[in-house]
Amino acid sequence: MSNVEVQPLTESGTGEIVAPCCPPLTERPMSAEEASVAAPMFKALGDPVRLRLFSAVASHEGSEACVCDISDVGVSQPTVSHHLKKLKEAGLLTSERRGTWVYYRVAPSVMASMAQSFAAFGS
Amino acid sequence: MSNVEVQPLTESGTGEIVAPCCPPLTERPMSAEEASVAAPMFKALGDPVRLRLFSAVASHEGSEACVCDISDVGVSQPTVSHHLKKLKEAGLLTSERRGTWVYYRVAPSVMASMAQSFAAFGS
Repeated sequence: MSNVEVQPLTESGTGEIVAPCCPPLTERPMSAEEASVAAPMFKALGDPVRLRLFSAVASHEGSEACVCDISDVGVSQPTVSHHLKKLKEAGLLTSERRGTWVYYRVAPSVMASMAQSFAAFGS
Repeated sequence: MSNVEVQPLTESGTGEIVAPCCPPLTERPMSAEEASVAAPMFKALGDPVRLRLFSAVASHEGSEACVCDISDVGVSQPTVSHHLKKLKEAGLLTSERRGTWVYYRVAPSVMASMAQSFAAFGS
């Protein structure tokens, strides 16, 4: 038995499980704890190259990509690798090594959870 | 007559005009130009205190707030003012002076535009 309190996961409109990282920003003032989880995600997307890399992975065939798939953002492969790791550390991407390459994909629930943050305006 | 090329505004599902800052991240790789507009917005939200302040304004009665309305984020009023200005510079808030106080509100289209960025995953 565990006494650890687990925050409930909620379902988005698409049935996807949404992590409790990002409550609707318009619903109520965000708590310090919530902000400490969500802010690093926004920060990771706050760099133009990282934002483009996140978009490159999210829009790639099969919703995953390796460094070998990304060549058009104007930075070297080591720099691409560095930024992809930062996106992973922020909880935005997951990764899996297959042979020579590490494949990145958007972490489950991230898109729905982020969309939810901005969804409730005016409602 | 002007030769300046104006990017078209699009309408969100709610009929709100959406600025072209944030195309769906999953639709296609974001261009350098698009990223240079959107990244500063994410960067501004990448600080926990600024994120809480943005949420405090967005969730406040009438969807606007002045420094005088915000007292519970654990920083001084000058610091609150500083962060609200940063959020304004990033295009997330607009401001209007009324008497002693500057009132901030979420810039039109920001919520819909940001939600749109994260909306198209899996579709």
